[in-house]
Amino acid sequence: MNYYQQHREQFLEGLKTFLRIPSISTSPEHTGDVRRAAEFVAGELRAAGLDNVELLERPGRNPLVYADWLKAAGKPTLLFYGHYDVQPPDPLDEWTSPPFEPEVRNGNIYARGSSDDKGQTYILIKAVEGYLATHGKLPVNVRFLIEGEEEVGGEHIEEYVSQRPARLKSDCAIVCDTEMFAPDLPTICVGLRGIVYGEIHVQSSDHDLHSGVYGGAAPNAIQAAAEIICALKDRQGRIHIPGFTDSVQLPSEEEKTAWARLPFNEEEYRVKEVGSTELTGEPGYSVFDRTWARPTFEVHGIRGGFTGDGAKTVIPARAVIKVSTRLVPNQKPAEVIEQLKAAVKAATPKGCTAEFRTVHGAEASLTDPKNPFVQAAARSLAQSFGSETVYIRSGGSIPVVGLFDRYLGIPSVLMGFGLPDDNLHAPNEKFHLPNFYRGIEAVAGYLEALGNT
Amino acid sequence: MNYYQQHREQFLEGLKTFLRIPSISTSPEHTGDVRRAAEFVAGELRAAGLDNVELLERPGRNPLVYADWLKAAGKPTLLFYGHYDVQPPDPLDEWTSPPFEPEVRNGNIYARGSSDDKGQTYILIKAVEGYLATHGKLPVNVRFLIEGEEEVGGEHIEEYVSQRPARLKSDCAIVCDTEMFAPDLPTICVGLRGIVYGEIHVQSSDHDLHSGVYGGAAPNAIQAAAEIICALKDRQGRIHIPGFTDSVQLPSEEEKTAWARLPFNEEEYRVKEVGSTELTGEPGYSVFDRTWARPTFEVHGIRGGFTGDGAKTVIPARAVIKVSTRLVPNQKPAEVIEQLKAAVKAATPKGCTAEFRTVHGAEASLTDPKNPFVQAAARSLAQSFGSETVYIRSGGSIPVVGLFDRYLGIPSVLMGFGLPDDNLHAPNEKFHLPNFYRGIEAVAGYLEALGNT
Repeated sequence: MNYYQQHREQFLEGLKTFLRIPSISTSPEHTGDVRRAAEFVAGELRAAGLDNVELLERPGRNPLVYADWLKAAGKPTLLFYGHYDVQPPDPLDEWTSPPFEPEVRNGNIYARGSSDDKGQTYILIKAVEGYLATHGKLPVNVRFLIEGEEEVGGEHIEEYVSQRPARLKSDCAIVCDTEMFAPDLPTICVGLRGIVYGEIHVQSSDHDLHSGVYGGAAPNAIQAAAEIICALKDRQGRIHIPGFTDSVQLPSEEEKTAWARLPFNEEEYRVKEVGSTELTGEPGYSVFDRTWARPTFEVHGIRGGFTGDGAKTVIPARAVIKVSTRLVPNQKPAEVIEQLKAAVKAATPKGCTAEFRTVHGAEASLTDPKNPFVQAAARSLAQSFGSETVYIRSGGSIPVVGLFDRYLGIPSVLMGFGLPDDNLHAPNEKFHLPNFYRGIEAVAGYLEALGNT
Repeated sequence: MNYYQQHREQFLEGLKTFLRIPSISTSPEHTGDVRRAAEFVAGELRAAGLDNVELLERPGRNPLVYADWLKAAGKPTLLFYGHYDVQPPDPLDEWTSPPFEPEVRNGNIYARGSSDDKGQTYILIKAVEGYLATHGKLPVNVRFLIEGEEEVGGEHIEEYVSQRPARLKSDCAIVCDTEMFAPDLPTICVGLRGIVYGEIHVQSSDHDLHSGVYGGAAPNAIQAAAEIICALKDRQGRIHIPGFTDSVQLPSEEEKTAWARLPFNEEEYRVKEVGSTELTGEPGYSVFDRTWARPTFEVHGIRGGFTGDGAKTVIPARAVIKVSTRLVPNQKPAEVIEQLKAAVKAATPKGCTAEFRTVHGAEASLTDPKNPFVQAAARSLAQSFGSETVYIRSGGSIPVVGLFDRYLGIPSVLMGFGLPDDNLHAPNEKFHLPNFYRGIEAVAGYLEALGNT
């Protein structure tokens, strides 16, 4: 047994401690927990033997956790990225075990953040810890930059990366926040969608009205919200935001051919992953196209009116629609925001006003699979998992990849260990423990391989 | 000064005590307050000198408050109706003064329930109290039946009236839960819309999904909710529920001519009452038609997804739409429920299931303005207010009027003292105090007039 195999129990206990901290970055009442999670990460990095461990502070922002080990002269420098903040756990009553009391069942650990992204961040830390513990040094230079605002737009890391690029000088970023295409199929993600997240504020009156007295003559903010939603995306799944898809860059024929070779059963995907009676989306595109290479418009919730138990006969005067669009290469968030503003205005029914307000935005990104850091990662993953590495895209958004490209001029290797059914952002999020353990060894093997080149 | 004028301060203090009880019938946590309000009404009736004061109980239901005075041999018997339960006060932050701390400003008393219906119920009690205090007896027989479930469907009163009609034997009901067409314009309401209130339960998946990973392929319960809403009522205000308007009975030419004579400024109504930039509704119909004589479809709120502060990128798996339809004469709630079920099913987009579930229903009702009890009421009102009484309809629903007709075979006189801008079911509900005081005198005058016939 090597060091990594000997320490599995400690790794699991450490991860559980990390998962018990409800570091929900979108909830102001969890600010203290968010800080505790940052301090936990810093403590782990210090214990692992990293140098210059530090919480990078900025008023009103969640700390970034920084650490480095830069004693491998002449060797490349890797920038390890992960995030310690998590999504809210609601709806709470759908969790089998409580979201912040990690529980192991059937080889998985269940908790909010287990896969996204505490489990994966912890892989990076434990790989370096193990290597230092067994060799006394690392074969390459490493920096860690672990953030606490990934789920809320990542403003702090954007400010830091854009303002202090010299402090982060590296040759390649290793981003551990994606998933494997299938269990036992090591995967590198070479494409991510961007995002524009925002709110549509709808107003139909200056006060709520009684639906008996005014029903038939008064506009209704939620009816208007529904009309706006349906105007922006139709029943067939086609998006109607003028200009929105004009600049979309299509995937290459080579990439589409590789996707066609991936083991994929659409019916199994529908039943086991999506859990719906039918798949939906833009007509004429494959599932990979629709989730990786096409932009989306999605509504996340509508606030306003009466939603409690029982009956209240109100005509709501105001509604707020939470929406996002996922963007693909060549779409610019700033342009999409203007397109959304115009489309919402045009779709607003009479008697109402509506306005799109941006919450955050990020560009899509692509990595060249032929990059040598990507190639080395593919070999290390193949070795640890005993299977050829595949290249996929992800429909999600990891804005930091664009930041590293723009301000540090480095590519990102998206080496993920999650699984498609990990229930990210949903109840019963889990992380597959065999991937956790093999991931630690794969990252350590990658360090070794890069040191030998 | 007569008794009523001498006791205005006591009447106001008593009303304030009544209004301080948060008797919100739709909220299980207010069950105790609902009971307190019933006991308050019983105490007031007892103090007024009524006989047989009693809380009529039924397990799981809010008590009915009963009282009578039946010593006027050979004289008609009136059944006084009101309700002591109120709507929820949310959104709380839009109230100028707290909803359950009544405050007098500019001649109005502000509190939830001030107009709907505690203030009006209190008028009935104080009119009888004053008459008994000054004459030692009443000129007619009266029964009181005050309910605590008007805002939640009124199941208890429906059961009681249908099962114990002999106990309530009367010649006419006096329902004090409507409004005057304008200040100083005494008004009797001779038409009410019915209602079917329900929930549309939408499901798109068995669990919430990440909008990055699955956006483009997975159905979205709130998008589906919006599509269903827009399918049932279009952008022009036309309702598309097959069969829904087939049986609608139109108002007579005589009634429409009387409506045309009412003092009404549509622009003032839009600005001061509705508070929107434009009026909406079915094309080709007047405001009176649209709010009194045409059925409606209205959405009250959508539960599901993420509506908190910040950003959560969830594809919601479930949504519940709160909706109601207002019904006009000849529409049958049971038929409308079937029509709604079929329309919802037909409007459900692919990948989703949706189902209409009834919360409650009630028929519309009409009263003949030539009925002698109506005519006598019109004369008493004209005398107290110094102006001719007008006949209007109301767009709201008072299901008890249908019950009294069906099970007791009696007409209802809808003698209301609210005003159109009372903010019923909305923040800053108010009751105009001059109407409160004149209403008490008008009801007392009505008793006297009926006793003399």
